[in-house]
Amino acid sequence: MKQFNKITIIGVGLIGGSIGLAIKKNRLAREVTGVFRRKSTLKKAIVRRAVDRGVLDIKSGVRDADLIIVATPVYKIPMLIEESARYAKDGAVITDAGSTKEWIVRKAEKSCKGLPVSFVGAHPMAGSEHAGVEFARPDLFNGASCIIIRTKSTNPGALNKLVSFWKAIGARVKVMNPSAHDKSVAFVSHLPHVAAFSVAGVVNDSDLEYAAEGFRDTTRVASSDPYLWADIFMTNRKELLASLRLFERYNRELASAVSKKDYKKLVTLLAKAKAKRDKLARYEK
Amino acid sequence: MKQFNKITIIGVGLIGGSIGLAIKKNRLAREVTGVFRRKSTLKKAIVRRAVDRGVLDIKSGVRDADLIIVATPVYKIPMLIEESARYAKDGAVITDAGSTKEWIVRKAEKSCKGLPVSFVGAHPMAGSEHAGVEFARPDLFNGASCIIIRTKSTNPGALNKLVSFWKAIGARVKVMNPSAHDKSVAFVSHLPHVAAFSVAGVVNDSDLEYAAEGFRDTTRVASSDPYLWADIFMTNRKELLASLRLFERYNRELASAVSKKDYKKLVTLLAKAKAKRDKLARYEK
Repeated sequence: MKQFNKITIIGVGLIGGSIGLAIKKNRLAREVTGVFRRKSTLKKAIVRRAVDRGVLDIKSGVRDADLIIVATPVYKIPMLIEESARYAKDGAVITDAGSTKEWIVRKAEKSCKGLPVSFVGAHPMAGSEHAGVEFARPDLFNGASCIIIRTKSTNPGALNKLVSFWKAIGARVKVMNPSAHDKSVAFVSHLPHVAAFSVAGVVNDSDLEYAAEGFRDTTRVASSDPYLWADIFMTNRKELLASLRLFERYNRELASAVSKKDYKKLVTLLAKAKAKRDKLARYEK
Repeated sequence: MKQFNKITIIGVGLIGGSIGLAIKKNRLAREVTGVFRRKSTLKKAIVRRAVDRGVLDIKSGVRDADLIIVATPVYKIPMLIEESARYAKDGAVITDAGSTKEWIVRKAEKSCKGLPVSFVGAHPMAGSEHAGVEFARPDLFNGASCIIIRTKSTNPGALNKLVSFWKAIGARVKVMNPSAHDKSVAFVSHLPHVAAFSVAGVVNDSDLEYAAEGFRDTTRVASSDPYLWADIFMTNRKELLASLRLFERYNRELASAVSKKDYKKLVTLLAKAKAKRDKLARYEK
């Protein structure tokens, strides 16, 4: 892959910081600039060497950047793309790392229309229940999926640049349209988060001391930032609600089999779920 | 703790095998005998040194044992306790490692009544989605909870022996009555399993390649043995169904907040769940 001259990351937390560290490790740019909201985070990111330099305003941050990556919480992404597009140099590629795509891509394409920049949406599918650049790691995306979005207005050259970029970072890249993305992640990411939040939400404090690995793993992501996930759920409402309806139906069939002592039905439902979960082994990192 | 002369383990899989390895490691008995259904498992357990010797019949297995531990799938436990009690020597303590207690303890106390043996139920809360002695580890119960059951017919001397035994293995022991146990584990173990099975049950095969750590962890236990878990669910029906009703209500409130775009309500529900999950850190091993 041809090295970028300058990459700017807006929002240098777990995801943005890990992208910065991966860029440095793989020498994908001559220089990485971070755009921060708070001076304290800027200092932390510099100490972690997640970026080469940091600024507090978009305008000076994105100027001269060949690639601009918006890695903030979902709700802020469209606004920051709009602002970046205004100050970016001719030919710049703007991308993001948000967990929902239809909502972001529609707004982003509108705000880049007629400007000499290209927007291509992306969703690197890695992370953890922790937030902040202190948890960033250069190998966070190694072997992870990164979905890159193509729409009818996507610039093919910009798309190729972004595909090469994420492959160079070590991700397994898949190109798809925004609605296919939102449907898939509703099932493999947003629904599991809702289920984890609900399991954690109903447990009694006094029972927590008996929790073993099963509870620990099933609810791990319920320790995630509530605002971050409220944003994600709100911007993928339709697909999330559709997956939740199927989930509720499955769950209710299980409950009904238990309630009616229908052992055969219960085993069938559990075995069907196990067969799907066991297929994940194919995609082990 | 005073060493046992002979301990017999009936059912030497992940749990029974790990108990055997822990007994050997901590020198808690002079001899450990395993009772097996299949010769092939007997051989595997001997190779793994989970037991000193193995037999294929209860009668010769439990004779002379001071402590008899039934570590089979839940459904078989009462029958095997009944059979063990018939052949056990005077003063023997019989226990189990089953995940539900009211159902087992009621039957076990009935079948031991009038015999010169004592039954004390137990539930070591550790395990994994894997089954079989090949996954057994001597440290499986290290730092794990072990709930030991006291009822009005429990022999205090036998209870004390069992408490000392599990403490010597490294478990955090808690004594409670069968219904308190069943209620707690419905929330911290059985409900998370149902949720995991339902999340895995509705995913599309073609979306699995995009699954990241969130999906992986939330659904890990859905790879567990369907028969094993059908047994557990069936023998804790009342408490499991009660926990499922609360879970469904929480889940539906979340869905309703998303559907009605009630951001404040959504954040409140997620934050409440996160606060509970974060409390688990207190009980980290």
